[in-house]
Amino acid sequence: MGKRKDKKALILDAMEKIISDGNAEGCSVDEIAKVAGIGKGSVYYYYRSKREIEMDLYFRTFGGFVERCQNIPETEIKAMEKLKALFKTYYDQALGLSLDSYLHLPQNMDMHQKVLALLVESITPILSKILKQGVEEGVLDCDAPDEFANIFVCVFAFLFDPGIFTLNVDETLNKLSAFAEVMERALKAKKGSLSFMRDKDFLLSLKKSSIWFQLD
Amino acid sequence: MGKRKDKKALILDAMEKIISDGNAEGCSVDEIAKVAGIGKGSVYYYYRSKREIEMDLYFRTFGGFVERCQNIPETEIKAMEKLKALFKTYYDQALGLSLDSYLHLPQNMDMHQKVLALLVESITPILSKILKQGVEEGVLDCDAPDEFANIFVCVFAFLFDPGIFTLNVDETLNKLSAFAEVMERALKAKKGSLSFMRDKDFLLSLKKSSIWFQLD
Repeated sequence: MGKRKDKKALILDAMEKIISDGNAEGCSVDEIAKVAGIGKGSVYYYYRSKREIEMDLYFRTFGGFVERCQNIPETEIKAMEKLKALFKTYYDQALGLSLDSYLHLPQNMDMHQKVLALLVESITPILSKILKQGVEEGVLDCDAPDEFANIFVCVFAFLFDPGIFTLNVDETLNKLSAFAEVMERALKAKKGSLSFMRDKDFLLSLKKSSIWFQLD
Repeated sequence: MGKRKDKKALILDAMEKIISDGNAEGCSVDEIAKVAGIGKGSVYYYYRSKREIEMDLYFRTFGGFVERCQNIPETEIKAMEKLKALFKTYYDQALGLSLDSYLHLPQNMDMHQKVLALLVESITPILSKILKQGVEEGVLDCDAPDEFANIFVCVFAFLFDPGIFTLNVDETLNKLSAFAEVMERALKAKKGSLSFMRDKDFLLSLKKSSIWFQLD
């Protein structure tokens, strides 16, 4: 079992390297096997296609990211600070830039949608926990934390995805600013308590900003 | 020009019939030409692939739907009634059931995402107009109607799409109910003024409910 896991890891590491190097488009299972340093037959023992390798790589990367997010509700800080920490972890960031960009290629839309749905389903319970804590602390008001969390995470995942909507700097800032207001009002939070979502310096410190703001 | 337009319409009509009949999977350009009653060469004069025909069919169907929605802000009724009318038109519905189901097949995810993005971009300005009217009537409060509209339409398009998230009856009702509350609070609307969104009888009267509630 240990060995099997190692070979799978080798294949996924190879796929990750190929995507990072910008060589994933048109690359064959043969080439993946070569980079992994194993035979093509071995690759086909674990995966039926390149697409399956790619999806599994996204699941693996994703698992690490969700784990980092899951730690946030368990820390000893206030709910509003946890909201900021989750926002930061989410955009600093889920997948890393090269995996993110690869996902946004037109031919990878099928994979993209699956990853976004998985993202929403994984992050919703984490945000819900934080909302519940905010209610207990008396800084938020919300009777249906699971559903509210689900709605908010949906907006983060889809509306701010550069692979779905073309965004420019001003539009992104305006949308984030409006969304901060929607969330503050919906949660009856103190006005300005989510202002980090529209703080340009804070946003520029996040890795995702290089995509949002077309920095290099 | 007239003739060209007619041939294109024949091709799209054929594609629509094939999808309605449940025969679109694996159907070839040859078969589309046969149903359209024209030569295969003629089809290739207008379209490079079956995918292009399908996309164009969605654009055409979509155009009619968006037009029906665009008429709503121009009517003589109150803003809150227009919100209900838009909701009803949206779910009663954008594409028709067979086109909707076809879009939700795993192999059509690329097309699905394009259609959803187009949906959000088309409906946002319509909802924004209605929000502005509500502000003028003094029943809504909102400084950024374009952005608020964009956020709300994003939730409608993605979170309630059975092709992205698996929904059951209770989850759908809970989510719609929570979303009505999020919107009411975010827009400072009277409590209960969006209660049609959680009214089961009203929802069951919409064509989309047969997908949401797994009727039929």
